[in-house]
Amino acid sequence: MRNTIGGLGEFALITRVTSQFPMTDDVILGPGDDAAVVAAPDGRTVATTDLLVEGRHFRREWSTAGDVGHRAVAQNFADVAAMGARPTALLIGFAAPADLPVSWAEEFTAGVRDECAVSGGTVVGGDMVGSDTLTIAVTALGDLQGRAPVRRDGARPGDVVAYTGHLGLSAAGLALLERGVDGPAECLSEHRRPSPPYARGAEAALLGATAMLDVSDGLAQDLGHVCRASGVRVDLESEALRPEPSLLEAVRVLGAGPGRAERVARDLMVAGGEDHALAAAFPPDTVLPDHWHRVGTVVEAAHGTAGKSGNPVTVDGHPPGGTGWDHFR
Amino acid sequence: MRNTIGGLGEFALITRVTSQFPMTDDVILGPGDDAAVVAAPDGRTVATTDLLVEGRHFRREWSTAGDVGHRAVAQNFADVAAMGARPTALLIGFAAPADLPVSWAEEFTAGVRDECAVSGGTVVGGDMVGSDTLTIAVTALGDLQGRAPVRRDGARPGDVVAYTGHLGLSAAGLALLERGVDGPAECLSEHRRPSPPYARGAEAALLGATAMLDVSDGLAQDLGHVCRASGVRVDLESEALRPEPSLLEAVRVLGAGPGRAERVARDLMVAGGEDHALAAAFPPDTVLPDHWHRVGTVVEAAHGTAGKSGNPVTVDGHPPGGTGWDHFR
Repeated sequence: MRNTIGGLGEFALITRVTSQFPMTDDVILGPGDDAAVVAAPDGRTVATTDLLVEGRHFRREWSTAGDVGHRAVAQNFADVAAMGARPTALLIGFAAPADLPVSWAEEFTAGVRDECAVSGGTVVGGDMVGSDTLTIAVTALGDLQGRAPVRRDGARPGDVVAYTGHLGLSAAGLALLERGVDGPAECLSEHRRPSPPYARGAEAALLGATAMLDVSDGLAQDLGHVCRASGVRVDLESEALRPEPSLLEAVRVLGAGPGRAERVARDLMVAGGEDHALAAAFPPDTVLPDHWHRVGTVVEAAHGTAGKSGNPVTVDGHPPGGTGWDHFR
Repeated sequence: MRNTIGGLGEFALITRVTSQFPMTDDVILGPGDDAAVVAAPDGRTVATTDLLVEGRHFRREWSTAGDVGHRAVAQNFADVAAMGARPTALLIGFAAPADLPVSWAEEFTAGVRDECAVSGGTVVGGDMVGSDTLTIAVTALGDLQGRAPVRRDGARPGDVVAYTGHLGLSAAGLALLERGVDGPAECLSEHRRPSPPYARGAEAALLGATAMLDVSDGLAQDLGHVCRASGVRVDLESEALRPEPSLLEAVRVLGAGPGRAERVARDLMVAGGEDHALAAAFPPDTVLPDHWHRVGTVVEAAHGTAGKSGNPVTVDGHPPGGTGWDHFR
């Protein structure tokens, strides 16, 4: 039973795992003590946490352990980037059944390590416990490098709405997997291993972004948070929502007829979650680099509707075709 | 179904929960954005994480939701205190079945809030997801206030070993619950709601502690970590291990005969976990306040044994009577 984590034992596994992570300049004290000590050079720390539960957020049949490790890092450091901060450190809680193969834990760790290398952060601590449900808890820390955090409540009427990264690919990849259909590798890979544009969070802050967030539940649903926090509406322009070729190919493979593929792809861009693009509002005169795609405008909230029910995000003035999802329903 | 968290929905529950927490001076940006921003006045952040899994770390039959909330805070801020730091902020991940009563989540939150008030920290962020297994992930942050962190690797031969807080009461409380026996309220309450001496972590740092940790798995097992990290041994003195009256009463209720009660109580002090006392090594000439109980001495590691298997902690020169436990075995 040495090939299960129950057989190997908690301490042996922790030792194997923690030896994988480089001590970056942000790490004052790494794993192995009661707590880690992380540098916070400007006197502030950005902090966010997420849980990934098997069967809800990933499936071992569809994602390798490495994919899950990548994703655990990506979705948390995307939140750090969405504040305009630089990813620094992670703490990872790992709850697993005793019969989980050691190889799964090791491949998960390799995925975490590889995505950390992309993001610039590293693992400084964690916890490992038994559970009937494989559950991964990630807390990510970040450094604002002296800048003000880019919150959700600063968008103003007239601001340009833009995103960077991918939109819709992860949802298309999930649909392909659910239907057991082969399709474009970009969509499958974006579902398994989203690639948030980490460094563009700080870039957006430097460009003067008035509001920003990580697109995890779908562009329309997530921009709704910006609208409610800022007391505005957002109107997206369908002409500006330009699907990537792989997304168009995926919706065709999934059965959208020739006349409908573009529209279905746009719906996935608006409603599909988990790509971890960054979406932001910028003052109207901002000169945006090409990798920021302008997709809409911030408009004044209709009198008396701000903060009420109903999605304050429209497409060409109409409610979007699809919505995101509530984890409990 | 509005009385279950599935019926109420994720966003409504998050709103109810986050409104409970005061924004202390440490909170630059609280819940509701992609990430929180926490003050780190001396340019460093202490960070630690723990998972609590139903059936492994708590049982809904034995602990109220409030107890679990208290414990989730206590065990994490105890780790922060064990670095010599002041507790500042928590992030809480909450994974629960859809049929969990809303009242459980609310009482859990009240427990978290009350223990936060004791510790001085507050909740700045979190995540809420569905899961078949009720699981709570807590990350705690702290402020070293300009002091060096008290690590595990600084104990030197000749140092005095002392603890503050309680030892053995939680284990006795657990034994009472497991056997369905009524017993001293102090032990039951310490199991349900451990009361770590948070402020004494910073005190120990100011007193010059050379090593310190939170006693979570048992004094002997945890001091073993200090020994291995510091390359020393620790000899505890049974005469110095003075059980609290409630602990003695509990072991009598549990069946220890008149001649054995003291010895069983000492074994529980040495092997019992989850009281979250602080144990530390101090230079021999340190004048300790009365609430630090001297229980042993740091001695030189026998040649070639440091870091090897076998517990480097002895009682009167002999191996201790019991041991802690490995979560997976």
